[in-house]
Amino acid sequence: MIRSLRVGIVMALVVLGASATPVAQPGPKRGFVQPRADAHAALELRFDAALEADLLRDWMQHLSSRPHHVGSPFGKEVADFVAARFTEWGYDTAIEEFQVLFPTPRLRRLELVAPTQFTASLAEPPLEEDATSGQQDEQLPSYNAYSIDGNVSGQLVYVNYGVPADYDALERLGIDVRGKIVIARYGGSWRGIKPKVAAEQGAIGCLIYSDPRDDGYGRGDVYPTGPYRMGRGVQRGSVADMPLFPGDPLTPNVGATADAERLDRADAPTLTTIPVLPLSYADARPLLEALGGPLAPLAWRGGLPITYHIGPGPAVVELELAFNWDLAPAYDVIATLEGSERPDQLVIRGNHHDAWVNGARDPISGLVALMAEARAIGELARSGWRPKRTLVFAAWDAEEPGLLGSTEWAELHADRLRAQAVAYINTDGNSRGFLGMSGSHTLERFINEIARDVIDPQTDVSVSERLAARRQVAGNPRFQTNGDHPIGALGSGSDYTPFLQHLGIASLNLGYSGESGGGSYHSIFDSFDHYIRFGDPTFEYGITLAQTTGRVLLRLTDADVLPFEFESFSETVTRYVDEIVTMTDEMREETERTTRLIDDGRYVLAADPTTTYVPPTTQDPVPHLNFAPLRNALTRLEASARAYGDALSPDAVAKLSVADQRALDQILIRTERVLTREEGLPGRPWFTHQIYAPGFYTGYGVKTIPGVREAIEQRDWPLATTQIALAADTLALFAAEVDRATGILTGSR
Amino acid sequence: MIRSLRVGIVMALVVLGASATPVAQPGPKRGFVQPRADAHAALELRFDAALEADLLRDWMQHLSSRPHHVGSPFGKEVADFVAARFTEWGYDTAIEEFQVLFPTPRLRRLELVAPTQFTASLAEPPLEEDATSGQQDEQLPSYNAYSIDGNVSGQLVYVNYGVPADYDALERLGIDVRGKIVIARYGGSWRGIKPKVAAEQGAIGCLIYSDPRDDGYGRGDVYPTGPYRMGRGVQRGSVADMPLFPGDPLTPNVGATADAERLDRADAPTLTTIPVLPLSYADARPLLEALGGPLAPLAWRGGLPITYHIGPGPAVVELELAFNWDLAPAYDVIATLEGSERPDQLVIRGNHHDAWVNGARDPISGLVALMAEARAIGELARSGWRPKRTLVFAAWDAEEPGLLGSTEWAELHADRLRAQAVAYINTDGNSRGFLGMSGSHTLERFINEIARDVIDPQTDVSVSERLAARRQVAGNPRFQTNGDHPIGALGSGSDYTPFLQHLGIASLNLGYSGESGGGSYHSIFDSFDHYIRFGDPTFEYGITLAQTTGRVLLRLTDADVLPFEFESFSETVTRYVDEIVTMTDEMREETERTTRLIDDGRYVLAADPTTTYVPPTTQDPVPHLNFAPLRNALTRLEASARAYGDALSPDAVAKLSVADQRALDQILIRTERVLTREEGLPGRPWFTHQIYAPGFYTGYGVKTIPGVREAIEQRDWPLATTQIALAADTLALFAAEVDRATGILTGSR
Repeated sequence: MIRSLRVGIVMALVVLGASATPVAQPGPKRGFVQPRADAHAALELRFDAALEADLLRDWMQHLSSRPHHVGSPFGKEVADFVAARFTEWGYDTAIEEFQVLFPTPRLRRLELVAPTQFTASLAEPPLEEDATSGQQDEQLPSYNAYSIDGNVSGQLVYVNYGVPADYDALERLGIDVRGKIVIARYGGSWRGIKPKVAAEQGAIGCLIYSDPRDDGYGRGDVYPTGPYRMGRGVQRGSVADMPLFPGDPLTPNVGATADAERLDRADAPTLTTIPVLPLSYADARPLLEALGGPLAPLAWRGGLPITYHIGPGPAVVELELAFNWDLAPAYDVIATLEGSERPDQLVIRGNHHDAWVNGARDPISGLVALMAEARAIGELARSGWRPKRTLVFAAWDAEEPGLLGSTEWAELHADRLRAQAVAYINTDGNSRGFLGMSGSHTLERFINEIARDVIDPQTDVSVSERLAARRQVAGNPRFQTNGDHPIGALGSGSDYTPFLQHLGIASLNLGYSGESGGGSYHSIFDSFDHYIRFGDPTFEYGITLAQTTGRVLLRLTDADVLPFEFESFSETVTRYVDEIVTMTDEMREETERTTRLIDDGRYVLAADPTTTYVPPTTQDPVPHLNFAPLRNALTRLEASARAYGDALSPDAVAKLSVADQRALDQILIRTERVLTREEGLPGRPWFTHQIYAPGFYTGYGVKTIPGVREAIEQRDWPLATTQIALAADTLALFAAEVDRATGILTGSR
Repeated sequence: MIRSLRVGIVMALVVLGASATPVAQPGPKRGFVQPRADAHAALELRFDAALEADLLRDWMQHLSSRPHHVGSPFGKEVADFVAARFTEWGYDTAIEEFQVLFPTPRLRRLELVAPTQFTASLAEPPLEEDATSGQQDEQLPSYNAYSIDGNVSGQLVYVNYGVPADYDALERLGIDVRGKIVIARYGGSWRGIKPKVAAEQGAIGCLIYSDPRDDGYGRGDVYPTGPYRMGRGVQRGSVADMPLFPGDPLTPNVGATADAERLDRADAPTLTTIPVLPLSYADARPLLEALGGPLAPLAWRGGLPITYHIGPGPAVVELELAFNWDLAPAYDVIATLEGSERPDQLVIRGNHHDAWVNGARDPISGLVALMAEARAIGELARSGWRPKRTLVFAAWDAEEPGLLGSTEWAELHADRLRAQAVAYINTDGNSRGFLGMSGSHTLERFINEIARDVIDPQTDVSVSERLAARRQVAGNPRFQTNGDHPIGALGSGSDYTPFLQHLGIASLNLGYSGESGGGSYHSIFDSFDHYIRFGDPTFEYGITLAQTTGRVLLRLTDADVLPFEFESFSETVTRYVDEIVTMTDEMREETERTTRLIDDGRYVLAADPTTTYVPPTTQDPVPHLNFAPLRNALTRLEASARAYGDALSPDAVAKLSVADQRALDQILIRTERVLTREEGLPGRPWFTHQIYAPGFYTGYGVKTIPGVREAIEQRDWPLATTQIALAADTLALFAAEVDRATGILTGSR
């Protein structure tokens, strides 16, 4: 409180729209008119004071005390516990229930039948050192959700990460996987891509294992000595075709309420078409050891003490899987604090509550920060403070099988959300380390401002400065001292996807990490015992995350005008276009080079004649595409963005009437919305955002300006040209909204 | 024969000095005046016809039938056998004997004494599948030659490859090796660098092991299934400080004849100062597993199925080594075919005959090609042909412990060699694959011409074209279609070193490889059985090497004027200078960047505060060095080189008298000589060559313009400035010789 008074004296001016240069004094730098800015800085200190690490620890210990996947008994208890706390803290709280398809294993059998015999254990053995690891009655066995049932037998082929480039390499070696069972290692793509590509290539089954080089002793000491995955640890996870659409496979586009219309399971397009099973490296080793055929390329070799071969065979495996294809209830906990002046503007803050097993880190470490924020804001509210806008806390169920809780809720409430949602702020797991920031670039400057205000608990400098130190030491050329950190673009992998990429709601995904490597992901060892030894033992980073995300919420809900800006967005999109143009040029040169080498017989000459080698075939030349529409749109966008930045003077905002502030907000909210197109991306209409999408063949990995980028990557030149025009139109609509916002500020509408 | 007649018709012109553009017709393109060029093309076909793969196989089977290291009973038999063949083929043959220091193990003991007990086996077990692997009575045990005696005990520290950069990384982790025993993996430098650097850092012992990722199952199937190193295979090898000087440690600069003056062993500067022992990965694993302390950096982790830690300790090891420090007789076989017109111009062709054990690949696969060349040329000579110049074949002893046979011979005959040697052509092992060419860049065009004439046995295109295919497929930007292949610069690692780098004799090192990876190097499994399964089963590449090297010999000994040229050299040296300037600029920027980060405390902020981290200390700024003398020298060199190329017209050569041809030869021979300086390189006077040297801290790895480059790398700016001036002087002397050569051609002397 004393500190905030000093702030008031030093900064007795309108700070809205101040430059990005860091200012020593914490507090909001944009969106607030004085003296509200100073008052808000004081409010944030009161917020901080209400955060208690012991509570985070207690909540985590309770919430991770038993397995709590969607549909589990303890899952319901978790939802009820969280809802009870929200109610206790003064929120208008509801549990919204959906009925979602959630298969659980009925039968899992994997046997090596030739040239030797081996039956995979498919079991994670409990450890004495881990108190909850022995709760086998409640644990889901290791499996990949949304694998279909199947009973297949065939020769085994090792396909590295199982991404399209790996199959190109196999083709060079004369190997195809038709009628075979592939074994891929985790990594290189989101796991659901592996069975999708394998099936496209004709494989009849897919095994996915954790290689110890990527996720085991090659990374560090294994649990319980260290945090990394031990020989029999297994990564569970969804393999639904999420880049097509996430959420309940039976109810695309609509909320999976009890009475929703449902697809027949046979028609559900996001289920796999071949059976899929995850393995530990202990189970994978005998299979890989039994492979003959060519030596795996150097980059394909993992950390097992064997020589990696590709096959096919002589290893022959039988894989039999059957699931209970039940609907399960998903319980989303929704807690609302209504805004005082603009209650129809919603700031939404979410983290899921379901886990694959006990889920101390994923998702509870993020959820307890969210709860701490809710509790502290509840205290502020009880003391008389109220935000201008409505704040919604959400604890999602069924994120793990494919963002079901958030997606179904977003689909059910789509109309209201499209009309009212300001932003969606996501977390999903947290640990010791450095701030990770991704999301809409219209919020890049805003979140950087906050990163300069939050203090890193280990070093007593701001989390922004600590991150800067790391990037500078790493020699990252994109980070300039004292500038804003570039934030990442969002692909998929957590609950922001329906908000950002389906509804066009500006989003952020935040979390600390980088100093507590681990291998407990989606295993029975993602436990309280593991987390307090290796994750964030004192919960100081739980507090820091709450301080970070809490500031986001407080400033977004209470600003005089929303702190969106457009120059970072404009620069970033220009960079994306540059990348795509460069990529196209490089594809053209590479295609020319390759064609020349093929025509000259160079590949065959370079190959070892004693081994099988199939040279590549020529591809059509890469035409010169007309990027002019995009370049012109960028030129306009840049001008519009700059004009808004220039217009956003302290005076201009101070002069706005409350009605104009609200009108300006409504335009700012709409800017992200106009980045979507109703017809969605080519082949996947659910994904409407034209700037950010998960890659169709990378999964979680983002593709920016995806319509254009993926058309070029797939060498579909007519589609690329169409998509360039559409992306240009989208940016023009965006620039028009920005111009309207500028008009309000300059009074020139 | 028929083919050669056609050559005569098609190419009835003087071809000397023809451009580098490939011509379909084989035969010498430079150095010969017609009609001698056509005759020579025919001679080469007769040479080819005299090569017989079965002989190579028989010789290898015999020469690798028992272990034959220097001083061994069968080593003498090998020398006698080779000498008898040379005599039989009509050469004036002698065995020259030297007495060299060659320690062999008397006692080897390595024990882990804490926290667990383990005694290293230090043994390579024989394999039934390998006929000679059981000859344990004659095998040298696994050891590193020129390790001192010692009995040390201390905590163990893992130092990765044990190069200076690894110790920088250790310093960051707060680890020093004073009083400790280090364990390094093979690779990253020549092995002798590891104990040298370890001792500089204060270590008291050094273990070197073969990690399975670099040299074992991580590379491919292990022997006998495949060619790679199995768990108990050990790499023997010398650890003398060869970058100081190679050869007998007791007789630097002079031939180690029986009555030579010898240093006391205590004063021999190339012996190690700490005991050193090589290990198999089977023996290394328990030691590495017993290490605690920090996790090894990601790049340090190898292929063992363990988490690599650095230590120090808790592993404590005892290492006890004692050697028989005897002199051994080294037998160099020297066979001479005197030249008809210029007998005082010597072309020398060498390959060593000693091995660490049976040595089928290293060195016999190269030696049998040399023998095939000698036999075929002997047949040509018997039929009446005689080269203009004298041809000397050498089969060196004692290469393995440190190039002793070649070095002592070169030192003993230094005066004659300086006066008479045209070039030294080396091989040392050969297998299936692609032609490797390294050496003096004055011979770059010459060897490329030959590479276009020799046919690859697997693909029926020239070995040049096949290599081009490989480089083009790999996207090598330095290789242009149809241009010359850039040849590598020579560091060290085989017998060319005394000729090139001590005496300044233009040298080439040639060999085929790349399609028979292996892990038999310096082990008991470098055997005939291994070679005929995995090396070059049909000896077709043995024949191809003989065809390649034979053409080098035939053209060098019989050309009208020596085929040296200077444009490639000029371009290459210019590239070296560019590299050094860029390196200096990058060092300057990196020093500035690092200093700024240190001053700003960034390293500490970026580090994990829960682990030990010692930030780097600031280094003096990198000054701007005056490279102008070098640049000016390069400008002159370029002009001189071009003038010589221009003057080398067919007419000009045809018009030269025999006396002028000889005078021109003498100048051409001297060009490489003037690249040496009598005082040698800073701190290592034995190495006199100013353009090529093995790196003082890389060993085999070449450092080009070493005086300048290493002074900068060591941040010795005054020395760098002096060395720039010296290098410029050297290049000026070289350009002056080239100008003199041009003068003869243009008649303007």
